[in-house]
Amino acid sequence: MSNPGLSYHELNDAWPLLSAGDRVEGFTLLSRGESEDLFDILDAREQAELILDLPPGRRRIWMRLLAPDDAADVIQETDEDGDRDAMLDLLDEPTREQVLALLAYAEDEAGGLMNPRFARLRPDMTVDAAISYLRRQREEQVETIYYAYVLDQQQHLEGVVSLRELVTASPPNQVREVMNSDVISVQEETDQEEVANVFAEHDLTAIPVVDEHGQMKGIVTVDDIVDVVREEATEDMQKIGGTEALEAPYLQVDLLVMLRKRGGWLAIFVLLGFLSVMALQGFQDELERARILVLFLPLIIASGGNSGSQAATLVVRAMALDECRLKDWWRVIRRELTVGLSLGIILGVIGFATTLIYLTTFHAETPGDSLLVAATVACSIVGVASWGTIAGSMLPFVLRGCGFDPAAASAPLVATLVDASGLVIYLGIAGVLLRNTLLAA
Amino acid sequence: MSNPGLSYHELNDAWPLLSAGDRVEGFTLLSRGESEDLFDILDAREQAELILDLPPGRRRIWMRLLAPDDAADVIQETDEDGDRDAMLDLLDEPTREQVLALLAYAEDEAGGLMNPRFARLRPDMTVDAAISYLRRQREEQVETIYYAYVLDQQQHLEGVVSLRELVTASPPNQVREVMNSDVISVQEETDQEEVANVFAEHDLTAIPVVDEHGQMKGIVTVDDIVDVVREEATEDMQKIGGTEALEAPYLQVDLLVMLRKRGGWLAIFVLLGFLSVMALQGFQDELERARILVLFLPLIIASGGNSGSQAATLVVRAMALDECRLKDWWRVIRRELTVGLSLGIILGVIGFATTLIYLTTFHAETPGDSLLVAATVACSIVGVASWGTIAGSMLPFVLRGCGFDPAAASAPLVATLVDASGLVIYLGIAGVLLRNTLLAA
Repeated sequence: MSNPGLSYHELNDAWPLLSAGDRVEGFTLLSRGESEDLFDILDAREQAELILDLPPGRRRIWMRLLAPDDAADVIQETDEDGDRDAMLDLLDEPTREQVLALLAYAEDEAGGLMNPRFARLRPDMTVDAAISYLRRQREEQVETIYYAYVLDQQQHLEGVVSLRELVTASPPNQVREVMNSDVISVQEETDQEEVANVFAEHDLTAIPVVDEHGQMKGIVTVDDIVDVVREEATEDMQKIGGTEALEAPYLQVDLLVMLRKRGGWLAIFVLLGFLSVMALQGFQDELERARILVLFLPLIIASGGNSGSQAATLVVRAMALDECRLKDWWRVIRRELTVGLSLGIILGVIGFATTLIYLTTFHAETPGDSLLVAATVACSIVGVASWGTIAGSMLPFVLRGCGFDPAAASAPLVATLVDASGLVIYLGIAGVLLRNTLLAA
Repeated sequence: MSNPGLSYHELNDAWPLLSAGDRVEGFTLLSRGESEDLFDILDAREQAELILDLPPGRRRIWMRLLAPDDAADVIQETDEDGDRDAMLDLLDEPTREQVLALLAYAEDEAGGLMNPRFARLRPDMTVDAAISYLRRQREEQVETIYYAYVLDQQQHLEGVVSLRELVTASPPNQVREVMNSDVISVQEETDQEEVANVFAEHDLTAIPVVDEHGQMKGIVTVDDIVDVVREEATEDMQKIGGTEALEAPYLQVDLLVMLRKRGGWLAIFVLLGFLSVMALQGFQDELERARILVLFLPLIIASGGNSGSQAATLVVRAMALDECRLKDWWRVIRRELTVGLSLGIILGVIGFATTLIYLTTFHAETPGDSLLVAATVACSIVGVASWGTIAGSMLPFVLRGCGFDPAAASAPLVATLVDASGLVIYLGIAGVLLRNTLLAA
């Protein structure tokens, strides 16, 4: 706040709106402390852009401010191979090796999230030696010294001890005696969503990452997990909405990319929409003889689409939170059968009453027909809403069972699939209930 | 793992399926250490149920294991006033007072999340005195001693210092000289979603909560924020799916509660569905004369519903992440106009080709009509998809502008609203394009 012209908060707020030149100029005007604060709160994509926009001589100090896992994130945000190599060259030799090792992991694995710099101790150190050793490790910019990991000669993880436990233990004790040996850890290739679930379940601050041999490779800290949880939820939400994951803030996505990510599924939905054209084609005869049925078409298929997308959304989210797994499909189907049928009946009753009111107000010619048409609408809503609920809740299971992402069971996909079958249910019921009146041969 | 019969991991996995009696029995069979581990990873609702299920004499030790903010969460999960009072009575006097103070905050405010026990220092202490003072504060079970908050006599927050900074500073220095006085803090009544955004933006581990006078009241730690971020995303996702927030794991929600939370919106959608009945009623004449138009009704309104729910989902999520604010509506509408029109044209071209193929295959009687009908379908898709996109992206702004939750702009709500207007667009375009052929008087 000591800068008279511009604070870093103001610059940060304006950041998305500024041109590359304005960003560099504003950044250069800040005091050293303020520019560090601003750099810290930029996300990896913004840091990458800024570093590449800076004059070559001023790039190195900013790149070297980053911890290895953050440097890897920044490098992953640059698209050109030449830029990547140039950025790697800005790092000192040991950091570059660590960053290259991290870049080999997928971005959404524990290995891609972890920081390879963590505080390590040997089991036979005394508590006193451990504390002074940890103080020295601080110089090496480990991610945290609040948790230290106890490793044997072969780097196998044997236990964990907090700085708090060390500080309050008796100095002559060995680390082995104060450490906790029942350590919760994850594998390098554990998916970040699973890592987030482990954090949430155990209320952890940091979690060690080990390889297949039990050798410790790094730590993931809870502040990185906040971002992961937000990102994963954003991706799932976008997929449920029928978009591919945008992977960048909405207002910053290039319009062509936006079109591609949104157009793909929409185009598929238009093609799938011809299922409902085919379904209606089979009932042209009925629609001609009982024209009043056309009026309720959108209403009835919408009640299937709505209950289906509702059920699909609930199940997809429950799966992401690990609240329900593949093996729970039978419990889910039992619930959704009950819920779907009950919802169907409630909606059917509402539909019956409203249809009757509508028909007696606007189509009062044949009161007997009105009752039958209202009954047709009501029974169709019961059938379509129950069927939509079952289909919507099972589609995520089918997708996961086949190895796909359950979130691909998006609301519009469920609605599109339920539309066609809803038409068959509606006009099938009409064929039965109206066979002696409107649809009499 | 030392327990020969049952590990706490196994018991935790089975927990949701067990009866109250089985839970108590399993819990009692665990060793003291394992039962503490299990108790730790249960969520507040499960802890509350377990404590109430235990024999009265064994409740106190578990209730007293909880930090004040966790105890407040557990008490908030009990429904009966009698149970609440009984649980409060289990606490010792100072904790009870802290818990009562916390219960006065809304659950979703910073005040409701914070722990009032934090490590505090005075600015004029020496670094050495500060370290030994922090060691003593450990006995009072403060949430963390890794960050200590520097307060003046009136409890005003003056700065923050990490244990790491203290440990590596020169002992005779005063705390004032090593502390960081540019502290990011939140107010007691700050919404938890906003608190999560502050954490995410600044990569913090803990954040102090102050009242309107700048007096410090407690701290919120990042591990609590992981839960907040997950909860908020779950609520938003459920709302976008057209449900009220379930506020409990999917498989544990009582069926009657589930029906109420899902049935409410669905009933409203059925009633709103009569908008499309009314819209179709106005075009009965056209539908009779050009019966082929009926076949494409579901296809066309679906393309409006799909693009609308897609746009609404993207905007609602961007708002929740603070990527786009109320004042950005103009930028959003400009983007969505471009995207919507482009998407509409792409879908229209696909629709034109597929309709033409369909008509020449199944309705080859009048080739001239086929071209015109395909053009009608195509133009309608362009209009409906663009309109759906605009309506879907603006509805969250309208809702937020009126003080409602933008996430109430659920996919099914947008689809239902767009359905009726989509019919008007479709049959209006048909009226123009087909006026000299199928719809000639």
